[in-house]
This record gives sequence, structure tokens and C-alpha cells, in this order.
Amino acid sequence: MTKPTKVVILDGGALSAREHMVYWQSASDAPMSLPVYSVLVMHADGNFLFDTGFDLEKFRANISPQGAIQTPAQTLPQQLSLLGIAPKNIHTVVNSHYHFDHCGGNHFCSGAVNVCHKAELAAALDPQPFESIGYSDRGFMPVDPDPKRQEDLARRLQTIEGDQEIAKGVFLFETPGHTLGHYSMMVRLSGRRPMLFTADASYTRRALDTMVLSTAHIDPVRGIGSMRRLQSLADEHDAELFFPHDPEEYTNYLKAPGWYN
Amino acid sequence: MTKPTKVVILDGGALSAREHMVYWQSASDAPMSLPVYSVLVMHADGNFLFDTGFDLEKFRANISPQGAIQTPAQTLPQQLSLLGIAPKNIHTVVNSHYHFDHCGGNHFCSGAVNVCHKAELAAALDPQPFESIGYSDRGFMPVDPDPKRQEDLARRLQTIEGDQEIAKGVFLFETPGHTLGHYSMMVRLSGRRPMLFTADASYTRRALDTMVLSTAHIDPVRGIGSMRRLQSLADEHDAELFFPHDPEEYTNYLKAPGWYN
Repeated sequence: MTKPTKVVILDGGALSAREHMVYWQSASDAPMSLPVYSVLVMHADGNFLFDTGFDLEKFRANISPQGAIQTPAQTLPQQLSLLGIAPKNIHTVVNSHYHFDHCGGNHFCSGAVNVCHKAELAAALDPQPFESIGYSDRGFMPVDPDPKRQEDLARRLQTIEGDQEIAKGVFLFETPGHTLGHYSMMVRLSGRRPMLFTADASYTRRALDTMVLSTAHIDPVRGIGSMRRLQSLADEHDAELFFPHDPEEYTNYLKAPGWYN
Repeated sequence: MTKPTKVVILDGGALSAREHMVYWQSASDAPMSLPVYSVLVMHADGNFLFDTGFDLEKFRANISPQGAIQTPAQTLPQQLSLLGIAPKNIHTVVNSHYHFDHCGGNHFCSGAVNVCHKAELAAALDPQPFESIGYSDRGFMPVDPDPKRQEDLARRLQTIEGDQEIAKGVFLFETPGHTLGHYSMMVRLSGRRPMLFTADASYTRRALDTMVLSTAHIDPVRGIGSMRRLQSLADEHDAELFFPHDPEEYTNYLKAPGWYN
């Protein structure tokens, strides 16, 4: 009998924003605090990590000295240690996309295969002018000046396309628009409804309910299509939606060391 | 000998905005007042109008009771009267695109052919959820409940594609991104550099200089391409750039009853 899958939400701190930076074309300048988290999937095939949060030092250096909160307890190694897992024991890192707040902890997982969408790697390596902040953390990219490290990074990168079941009951669904190669993840569990992590295809529940894209995006038409797809997937699979940056809903999520199974 | 072409800028009032509503992904909430104007081209082939400003009543009814300024002297008929022209003597209305602040005066020009890009009419008739404010003025569309009026509107609509010289020295250049079927216009004159009206492919000079798109858009990648195209066209033709919503530059434009020739 295989071990039942567990899903663990690893708190990664928070980013300050304004409402108009979250909800595209909103007139509101109201301040918001956006949670950031990673999703650990403890599976019979190994430990999978879906997104890895942001790197506080890189955020401060590349984007802004203020605006990010991440205590030592909210770093990826500390969060994983709550489950007794070392970063090197992560088997696969899947990045929904390569924005800085979703790949900042990749570098901790030195033994992992790094999976992302083929279109995402291409986009991150050659970003549009309006994506420079999004793709500001380039630590995971196979462009390291050290040839040995570059070779190691390139060797561990694995790009995929289309919807994929990467392990039994762990599904990646293409949801482009926020970025060109964006994945959402659904995990089937034995004791509850499937969990559908939208990632940045919909920052919050309100965004999905009102069909308002995030202000950061590259293809709004496909982004709307991805929101519709997430609604359909949730209906079809009776899945519970989990949003990446929802200040209200996040307070109700069970976080590490707790888990869903 | 044909009459030399004249270009006249017809003041159409102003719209209130916030900086983040003008410059995509800007953090600034600073207030801005955006000028709105139409361009009259008095040509040997007839009177052409490029864009027609906004309709104050529709703005108040559809978008906001506040936020728009348009005195009676800034309405299209009053502006045209400064040149001794009646709206019915407009030969052709070209809409850069069908956003409310560019087609609001179309209804005054009851004798004109209405030219727009084929892709623009299709987009305006079936807008994306995020385009509902942009396309909120539907008065020009051949969807009038009165069958006779609908027939008249449809008869006068003429959609085109590709770059076009619509009259000698009057060029339309495809510049999509802000909307799907967007045109910029260049006019050659006998006594000065060509005038290149970007329309909403670049709201302001700062936008073009910094390659920052307007917050309202449908295809940012093509929008960046259109900004690059405008720079190239200006260089290639030694054309002077005129921006549609630039509060600083607008103060230096010569307005009706004055003209450029």
C-alpha cells in the first residue's frame, strides 16, 4: 500500500501592494498585504514543491528596500524543517511561473529537478520591457557566470508542455495569460476534495468572481480564458480553489506543520 | 493647383485620471488631467476627421458623474464652427479606435463615411470583460434598435486593413496593442515636417520615451511593437510626434482656429 499524499502550505511572508497593482484597472490606491506561500506535496514518488516564494535579499536589492516581510521562520528551509524535510530532499520543484515571488527559494533545492512550462523558460530568458520586475530573480536560470554551476542548472531544468499528470493524482493545467507559460496545480487526496492551486492565474477569490486579471500580465485575452478554465476545472472535479495572494482566504488555510490529506 | 492641406487640432475637453491609470504598473496615485482632442484634416479631397473626442452625457451616464470636463465651446460642432465647417460637411471620420474618448462625436457627422480597422469593429462589437469602459459609447455601432438608423450606420461604415494612404499625403499606420485594430495617422504638409498622431498607441511622450504602455490595453506585446514602430516611423519620415493625452505637450499644440500647414 502506497503512502497517502499530503499537501502542506509553507508560509513565505508577505508583499506590500496597492489595490490597483493587484486588480487591473482598479482606481483604488488602498494598501494591501499579499501573502506568499509554497505548496509541498508529500507523495509516494517523492517530495514535490510547487513554487518557492521570494528571496528577501534579492527583493530588497532588485525591487525595493521596503515592502517585503519574511521572518527567518518564513524562509523555505525553516518551513520545510517543520515537516522534518531538508531542502536537498526535495525531489521536484515545479514553478507555476518564474516571477520572483514564485521561484525565490529554488536555489535551496540543490538536488531537485526543476520543472516549468517550455514557454515560461523562453519568456523568462527574454522578458518584455514590462516584465522586468516580475522576472527580476534570475538565480534559477541556466545563465550563471560559473560554467560548472550553469551546467548543473541546465541539467536539472526540465521543460514541459500541455496538461500533465506529473505524479499519480498531481495534475498541472496550462493557465497562461499572467505569463506565457503558466501552470496551475490540482492534487487529489484520499480524505477530502481535490485542491486546485490557481497560482497567479487568479491572485484572489474576488479576482476570479469578478473576472479581473492581475495588473501584471502579458496576454489578457488568454488570461480571461484561463480564469474561465479554472472555474470549469473546479466544477468538473469538485475541487476547492486555493489562491496565491488572497489576504482574507489565506488566514483560513491550514499551514505547516499542519497538512491536508 | 490643389489647395494645400491644413491640419487643425480641435480641443475636446479633459478627463481626470490617476497616474497608475495612465502608466501601466506605475505605483503612483498622483492625479492627472488628460486632454482629449480631434484632428481635422482639410484636404483637397474633403474634410477628414481623425477621432471625435468624448460625449459628455454618455460619459456621465456610463462611466462616472464626475471626472470629465467639456464646455459647450469644446463640443465638436462648436470647434468645427471655428473653421466655418458644419459637422455634416465632414467627408470622412477615421477612428483610431472605438474607445469612448475617440468616437464620442461621430454621431454629429451624419454625412460622413466612418472608417476604422476591420479588427477594431469586430473587437468593439464583442469586447473582452476588461474593455467594457473603453467601449462604453456604442452610439456609432450598427446595432441601433431603429432599423432605418441601423441601416444608415452600417452603410456608412467602412473597415480597412493594413497601412493605407487614404488621401494624398494622409497615411494610416497599423499600431495595435492598446486595442486590436488601432491606427495612428501621419499627414504630410507643404510647409513643415510631417505630423504623426500616435493616438492611444502612446498616450504621452514620456510613455514612448520609457516604453510604458497605457494601463488600458489588450495585447501588451504588440503594444510594445507599435511603440517601436512609431519611433521608427518618426525617424524614417522626420515626422513630429503628437500625443493624444499628454498634459504638458498639449499646452504647446496650436489649436483651432489656428492650423498647421
